Amino acid sequence: MISFTRGVPATEAFPVEALAECAASALTTYSSQVLQYGSFRGFDPLREYIAAEYGLASDQVLLSQGALQIVDFIARTLITPGTVVLVEQPSYDRVIKVFRRAGATVVGVPLQEDGMDLAACEEIIRQTHPLMAYVISDFQNPSGTTMSEAKRRGVAALAEQYNLLVVEDSPYRRLRYSGSDIPTIQSMVPNRTIQLSSYSKLLSPGLRVGLALGPQQTMDRIGRTAQDTYITPALLPQATVFEFIARGLLPAQIEKLHNLYRPRLSELLAALDAEMGVLATWAIPQGGFFVGVTLRKDVKAETLISRALQEGLQLTNGRDFFADGRGDTFVRLPFCALTTEEIDEGVRALARVVLSL
Amino acid sequence: MISFTRGVPATEAFPVEALAECAASALTTYSSQVLQYGSFRGFDPLREYIAAEYGLASDQVLLSQGALQIVDFIARTLITPGTVVLVEQPSYDRVIKVFRRAGATVVGVPLQEDGMDLAACEEIIRQTHPLMAYVISDFQNPSGTTMSEAKRRGVAALAEQYNLLVVEDSPYRRLRYSGSDIPTIQSMVPNRTIQLSSYSKLLSPGLRVGLALGPQQTMDRIGRTAQDTYITPALLPQATVFEFIARGLLPAQIEKLHNLYRPRLSELLAALDAEMGVLATWAIPQGGFFVGVTLRKDVKAETLISRALQEGLQLTNGRDFFADGRGDTFVRLPFCALTTEEIDEGVRALARVVLSL
Repeated sequence: MISFTRGVPATEAFPVEALAECAASALTTYSSQVLQYGSFRGFDPLREYIAAEYGLASDQVLLSQGALQIVDFIARTLITPGTVVLVEQPSYDRVIKVFRRAGATVVGVPLQEDGMDLAACEEIIRQTHPLMAYVISDFQNPSGTTMSEAKRRGVAALAEQYNLLVVEDSPYRRLRYSGSDIPTIQSMVPNRTIQLSSYSKLLSPGLRVGLALGPQQTMDRIGRTAQDTYITPALLPQATVFEFIARGLLPAQIEKLHNLYRPRLSELLAALDAEMGVLATWAIPQGGFFVGVTLRKDVKAETLISRALQEGLQLTNGRDFFADGRGDTFVRLPFCALTTEEIDEGVRALARVVLSL
Repeated sequence: MISFTRGVPATEAFPVEALAECAASALTTYSSQVLQYGSFRGFDPLREYIAAEYGLASDQVLLSQGALQIVDFIARTLITPGTVVLVEQPSYDRVIKVFRRAGATVVGVPLQEDGMDLAACEEIIRQTHPLMAYVISDFQNPSGTTMSEAKRRGVAALAEQYNLLVVEDSPYRRLRYSGSDIPTIQSMVPNRTIQLSSYSKLLSPGLRVGLALGPQQTMDRIGRTAQDTYITPALLPQATVFEFIARGLLPAQIEKLHNLYRPRLSELLAALDAEMGVLATWAIPQGGFFVGVTLRKDVKAETLISRALQEGLQLTNGRDFFADGRGDTFVRLPFCALTTEEIDEGVRALARVVLSL
């Protein structure tokens, strides 16, 4: 069975021994800070490190158990029933669900190869008066696309013009396998952006160390929601990550991931070219975890999924990524946790499935 | 400054070296289980251990980042605006807040020295038709009282008669300094009880390892709320706790806490007898973290708190523990993280403050 479902990192890439040493060292070095109740904002040294990276005050940084939980805090703090939230269409399914759970009306803005369709976005803003827009500017989940600098400046301008809060989720940003970094929207309109990131894709998701940074007053409000939910987040994983960074180990770990994931992406793109050229379209990602494929055939997601299972292929329901539910022909292909052989075999199986429909 | 505010464990009681070894060992032994995404229910070996302790299936156990977060999941899963939740009066302030945030109407049932006033409880049930009752049966927060076996059976009977879900919070249960264990309500009506507990008071709150166990179907529903919030909880702290338990270290750790906390409670009770006998009443706890004192004097909480600060004493607002807000004269005294000298000095200061009002 080949799983093209969840965006999980390659288990073989976890720096197990180094993390074991860092955890033990974090516990003895910062024992009372790690073991006692602490700030609801998270482990101070890691917050200070991140704040310095961005030129912010440390209290502008909130650490939590993964970034999704911070989206939940943002939603619970800022959204009331009927609040409109824009997302790219397609977007990260779990985030759409979290916003909806808080009562939001989630509206999708069509995604192009270089980011949201800005004209459509402005039209939707005028019509629906959204409070915020959630975007994944680098190596988007699930499409793999990256927003161009021009479009980022466009989103920043719309945020200023229409008093919009941008939630910019950047978990894959440092996993760029080709091309060059593009400035974040956060760097363009820091007072209108909450940027999210995480060590899940760089180090380990089981550690659950996610982060948010943004305007002080907004972060204070979101932080109080966090405090009222768990008093203090789990500090040992945060201190372990800090120790890993303090030892200077992160750049080599990221380099290792680049070398592991780059050939997997190349293999996937080559296999798609070979097998799916006439059956589907896709954008070519420069990093991240996913290639998003749109089939040229009209098909129900359920039919696709059940036929794929018969061919030993697990797929996710494409509709979940679409705020308007029109994602039946969309297939997200995560490639990081698969070998090149599995990728080849998986794409061949997918082609057989699509041809048979 | 002496702090009679938060219920924090004594920092000197943390088994730092052992936890450092356990964390490193957990990471190498269970590397892919701890570092990869895992079950939303938490680290399997710890769930299996707890399930075996209670004679349950492991999927009846949910681990999260502290028990308060599980209360939040319970609230978000089961409460809709207007749902009535009973709590003891006084009760744990943070839990009252979590229930209210989910839209619950929280109703307090008067607490006596041996637990809730059951006649009042039944009357309130008839009038308000609550969905659930939240109780802390052992060494209650904030009063220090323990519910008698007869009253536990009474609560169990009311749960059966009125189709009530009991949420029994037991974080202090194993911190009994005198007397004998009383069966839990969970053992009496397991199909109507969610029991909560935590390693925060036994090992470390910064680890944030809380747990809930209950009927399978209810735990499945609550678990899905957890999954939709953070996918997987932080697994390293849970694996570290498991390793600590698997090495057989927990009984000696609890014994160490008994020996550290028992004299602190004795000192607090002696100081109260000496200084506060005519000024206040209190129940004598047999364990836990708190003595709850009710002043005989009519006073506003704010006046008490600001006068106490002038005497170098930090107090919590007593009203926060009362669902009906009538807790101005209630003072929660946590004793675990204070030396006997600080306890003496603190109670003398409190007596001076009360006399001066």
